[in-house]
Amino acid sequence: MPKAYTQIHHLALRAFTTNVFKSLGVPDDEAALAADVLAYSDEHGIDSHGIARLKTYFDLLKAGRINPRPNLKVLREKHAVSTIDGDNGLGLVVGPKCMDIAIEKTHKHGSGSIAVCNTNHYGAAGYYPLMAVKEDFIGLSMTNTTKGVAPFNGKEKMLGTNPIALAFPSLNEPEVVIDFASSTVAYGKVEIAHREGEIIPLGWCLDKNGLPTNRPEEMIDGGALLPLGSTKEGSGHKGYCLAGAVDILSAVLSGANWGPFATPFAINSAMPEIQVGKGIGHFFNAWDIEGFRDLTDFKKSMDHWIVTMRNTVAMEGGTKVLVPGDPERKSYSIRMEDGIPVHQIILDQLKTISQSCNVPLP
Amino acid sequence: MPKAYTQIHHLALRAFTTNVFKSLGVPDDEAALAADVLAYSDEHGIDSHGIARLKTYFDLLKAGRINPRPNLKVLREKHAVSTIDGDNGLGLVVGPKCMDIAIEKTHKHGSGSIAVCNTNHYGAAGYYPLMAVKEDFIGLSMTNTTKGVAPFNGKEKMLGTNPIALAFPSLNEPEVVIDFASSTVAYGKVEIAHREGEIIPLGWCLDKNGLPTNRPEEMIDGGALLPLGSTKEGSGHKGYCLAGAVDILSAVLSGANWGPFATPFAINSAMPEIQVGKGIGHFFNAWDIEGFRDLTDFKKSMDHWIVTMRNTVAMEGGTKVLVPGDPERKSYSIRMEDGIPVHQIILDQLKTISQSCNVPLP
Repeated sequence: MPKAYTQIHHLALRAFTTNVFKSLGVPDDEAALAADVLAYSDEHGIDSHGIARLKTYFDLLKAGRINPRPNLKVLREKHAVSTIDGDNGLGLVVGPKCMDIAIEKTHKHGSGSIAVCNTNHYGAAGYYPLMAVKEDFIGLSMTNTTKGVAPFNGKEKMLGTNPIALAFPSLNEPEVVIDFASSTVAYGKVEIAHREGEIIPLGWCLDKNGLPTNRPEEMIDGGALLPLGSTKEGSGHKGYCLAGAVDILSAVLSGANWGPFATPFAINSAMPEIQVGKGIGHFFNAWDIEGFRDLTDFKKSMDHWIVTMRNTVAMEGGTKVLVPGDPERKSYSIRMEDGIPVHQIILDQLKTISQSCNVPLP
Repeated sequence: MPKAYTQIHHLALRAFTTNVFKSLGVPDDEAALAADVLAYSDEHGIDSHGIARLKTYFDLLKAGRINPRPNLKVLREKHAVSTIDGDNGLGLVVGPKCMDIAIEKTHKHGSGSIAVCNTNHYGAAGYYPLMAVKEDFIGLSMTNTTKGVAPFNGKEKMLGTNPIALAFPSLNEPEVVIDFASSTVAYGKVEIAHREGEIIPLGWCLDKNGLPTNRPEEMIDGGALLPLGSTKEGSGHKGYCLAGAVDILSAVLSGANWGPFATPFAINSAMPEIQVGKGIGHFFNAWDIEGFRDLTDFKKSMDHWIVTMRNTVAMEGGTKVLVPGDPERKSYSIRMEDGIPVHQIILDQLKTISQSCNVPLP
């Protein structure tokens, strides 16, 4: 472990996060829920979406830009589907509550689809389909995010890194959990390279002139990320299609701010000049496997699927073939033992928060 | 137009296809339906999925490997969701009938999700969500296909090119239609390069030893396609995740043959030694926009979304930013005028079919 990191016990980190949210006026149960969503990331090695984001939630709550006590409102409903207004609450609270509604609908109708507007950043997308898996359902979640990605052939930031996540239950093997940004890489990877003074691969981003660059600072200074596939030869139009689909399902369908109008997730970023909806948007879906197939048969097939994929002969110089969710499970088992590695920069942020809201550091 | 192509009027091609299917025992209305699905591809420039595939459907029907008169059966149902057994029918007939069921359910429940097993190749994935758009719904379709793609880090073919398609209605602008294979490129692109004696970009495929190759013949000779993203740096694990999700939703959920066990779509390919289900699988979903948001408001937002994306400043050396569906619409308007360009190789196949089933050539 490099010196820049301090190991913190996962329960201590959860308690700190919960208390910070409580100190900002978030009700006790919702503070614990929001902390659970962030802890999911830290405990599973998704360092970009956990405690590293607490400062931003803190700033936005403190500045009154996020509502600590939202009242969710059903805007429209038709049996299996509905749109919920998140009342400008924390995405970390609005998200799980809306996935719960999707699950409730799935128990009743065989599936449930919830579009959400007037919400904020909801943490790691993978948290939500796992809620469905606990009910033996298939789960899907997606969200639009602040602009950072150029459409295929474009040089301007017009779409977010718009992630998509799906999870499928299994029997004796662990569940399959898919969770990825529709850009080639998340912005966090460019930031890390910048911090470490490293060059990045061509295909990750453009500079402010719309030219491919391998220098992180040239992307940060007015450039844009590229959609999954990156180039014409790599089929970058496919990543653009994915990002577009996530944007439409999450934000156009719910009446949120879509595309370049998405609300920024940063205290210092200017709000877009035009508002085309309310907040950002999420989309959740769950399906009851029993409505399609005997649950045990499905789970046995999933076990077979997982074992089959893992047994694929590796490519030359490649590591073992994994199934989606394996890397996060590996991090989880290490971090439950060793604690969560928190970078010094983040630790300094936690100190500031601790002093500001009088919650002792973990 | 190069000499190798003959222009054929779209209606003549439709009539020919319909009559070929009829001559093989497909009922009149279903023959016209199957021809419509193939014509959609030819008329929209998706040359890999139209008349170029007729010979394979013909061979499989003639050999009794596809049932010309399937009776679709509901295997399971729970309100908004259901699994249908396609009775080993043409995917070109089973597909539209199952999307119709998804649409019917959507009228009733706000959404409809249909998993299909015991079916065959269903043509271009984009045909199906457009059926939903005609009802002012959002549509989704996906299918698993014969193995051709290596999982991330693997060198063996374990998954199909498993496409995913979505479509969204709009008001004055044309609809957004997304349709792409989850591999970096479809096999057809490698075949075309091979025919033309061209080199292909690294990142499209591996040779039989699991090494990247730019020679199409080395992929064709026991190699594999790569998932979208291609490499570690390009986030090839994301394409693998997508292909896996399509495989599970289409084939594991419905009880079809998944992954490397998917039924081959070629008369000369050996069947996999093990059957883990019935036929291949599709997954269809539709959502009623009115269950989420006022339809006209949604469509106006879609128009705004489309115009906004099209107005993105192009990257250096890039062409105009398009919205998904634009290239196919351009082909459509040209081909309605000029006819469908049919390659001499395909024309020779049509001649064979014509002689065999006594249907005059178009």
